[in-house]
Amino acid sequence: MSEASSQVRADLDRLLPLLDAELTAPFRSGEAVRLGEAVRYSLEAGGKRVRPVLCLLACEAVGGSAQQALPGALALEYIHTYSLIHDDLPAMDDDDLRRGRPTNHKVFGEGHAILAGDALLTEAFGVLASAGLDPMRRAEALTLLAEGAGWRGMAGGQALDLEGEKVEAYDLEHLRLIHRLKTGALLRTSLEIGAVLGGATLTERVALRAYGEAIGLAFQIQDDILDATATDADLGKRAGKDAARGKITYPSLLGLEGARHALSEATETALCQLASLPNRNSLAAWARYLALRAG
Amino acid sequence: MSEASSQVRADLDRLLPLLDAELTAPFRSGEAVRLGEAVRYSLEAGGKRVRPVLCLLACEAVGGSAQQALPGALALEYIHTYSLIHDDLPAMDDDDLRRGRPTNHKVFGEGHAILAGDALLTEAFGVLASAGLDPMRRAEALTLLAEGAGWRGMAGGQALDLEGEKVEAYDLEHLRLIHRLKTGALLRTSLEIGAVLGGATLTERVALRAYGEAIGLAFQIQDDILDATATDADLGKRAGKDAARGKITYPSLLGLEGARHALSEATETALCQLASLPNRNSLAAWARYLALRAG
Repeated sequence: MSEASSQVRADLDRLLPLLDAELTAPFRSGEAVRLGEAVRYSLEAGGKRVRPVLCLLACEAVGGSAQQALPGALALEYIHTYSLIHDDLPAMDDDDLRRGRPTNHKVFGEGHAILAGDALLTEAFGVLASAGLDPMRRAEALTLLAEGAGWRGMAGGQALDLEGEKVEAYDLEHLRLIHRLKTGALLRTSLEIGAVLGGATLTERVALRAYGEAIGLAFQIQDDILDATATDADLGKRAGKDAARGKITYPSLLGLEGARHALSEATETALCQLASLPNRNSLAAWARYLALRAG
Repeated sequence: MSEASSQVRADLDRLLPLLDAELTAPFRSGEAVRLGEAVRYSLEAGGKRVRPVLCLLACEAVGGSAQQALPGALALEYIHTYSLIHDDLPAMDDDDLRRGRPTNHKVFGEGHAILAGDALLTEAFGVLASAGLDPMRRAEALTLLAEGAGWRGMAGGQALDLEGEKVEAYDLEHLRLIHRLKTGALLRTSLEIGAVLGGATLTERVALRAYGEAIGLAFQIQDDILDATATDADLGKRAGKDAARGKITYPSLLGLEGARHALSEATETALCQLASLPNRNSLAAWARYLALRAG
């Protein structure tokens, strides 16, 4: 085990119990029983919790406590989970398998899957709005969340990606735009919300935003490489889908070696942003770990 | 024209321009061009703007200005519009026509319709979070919005309604639960957000919440009556759908006369709540108007 991955493991052992204790709490009792089940099914599917953990680490990196950023971290995992449920729908990416289990609509039907996504998206803002945090920081975090998740961020990126499947050929610049919105915006937002809730200075906030931007890019390149090289069992979802659809990816535009080079460049850029932060070890380990992950 | 409807007309003439000036502003420039078009298509479909207008009137009823409640009013119309787009989808109510025009997914495709709803839902919280309002009132309004729209409110009600189509027979109590969540929660929230943004006392807030609850019920009974008695052209959507589907409605449970009686009872309950408010004329006129509307 490398130094980076043992640091990541230690952070996960420390932070995941905080998240897990609260994650499904808002969806445990209520009148729409089956919808609650649908929501919990996807929340409990055992994702990697990258966004909430990065949010908590960003808060710690500027001298805050993980507890301070917890409502933000939960909100980010709700947004991420809603986006997976909606992206898997037949009208979008049409996936049957996610994290090794049938996708939400396969189990609960399309209507409930759409509503489960809607309920998660709504609760993301609810958990942050009702948190016992400084009201100005809370409002700022809510504004960032809406920007990162909405039509200028993640939802907009997913729309462009959907349109892209019908486009004959597009270039690296357009691919980068899609990923900057679809994957990058929420990762960047995760870091920035953690920074805001931890009381970051403006310099720290800008640095963490740039770090988030760079690892968002690294993350997407790595995803494309994995899709091109891994097996279904490695990924817990169908591999080789992008190529089968003729979808443009980093490996298809740059070749596998070119994509690997772009990945290490993005990782270096992320690491450079951390110089000014009081506690930078964990975030540095995460950047190295994400670039090396196997699936 | 009755006294009630001329008061309503005067309020609309005064308040709709405020709303229309801001409604599509967040969706005018951005990179996801087609998604922006899909969002604006539904926002500009000429709805009755009942929720945002009631929010502005609630703010005025407690002595605030309409301008103070405008971000809340916009948020409510975004939530309402998202819910119509998603409810019309084939996996939900499967409607081709809405307000006399093809539904969003008929024009932009299902994927974009899902995303247009998601973008509107997200922006509802964004517009309120970033508004230049007292931060405590803003946080309270955001919390109310999440409760009214989420799985304990509107989204939960839509899930129960969807399940209800498969239920052989259910009683008046279950029908009321569904409507209290599906339609009632957001109407009640509209009044309560207006009250909070206008700086209501606790008594005023409770009264406006109860008023909202009662007109929500009246609104739904009237909707069921209209579906049973009007034509497609009257409604701008398919009439008689509920009966065609064997869906339980107030007229089917109580008969048409019974439903009309329940409607006037709910209207009376609404009017009773207004006694303690400084400016109650407009809200009283709206309760009477909603009970009489033709479509």
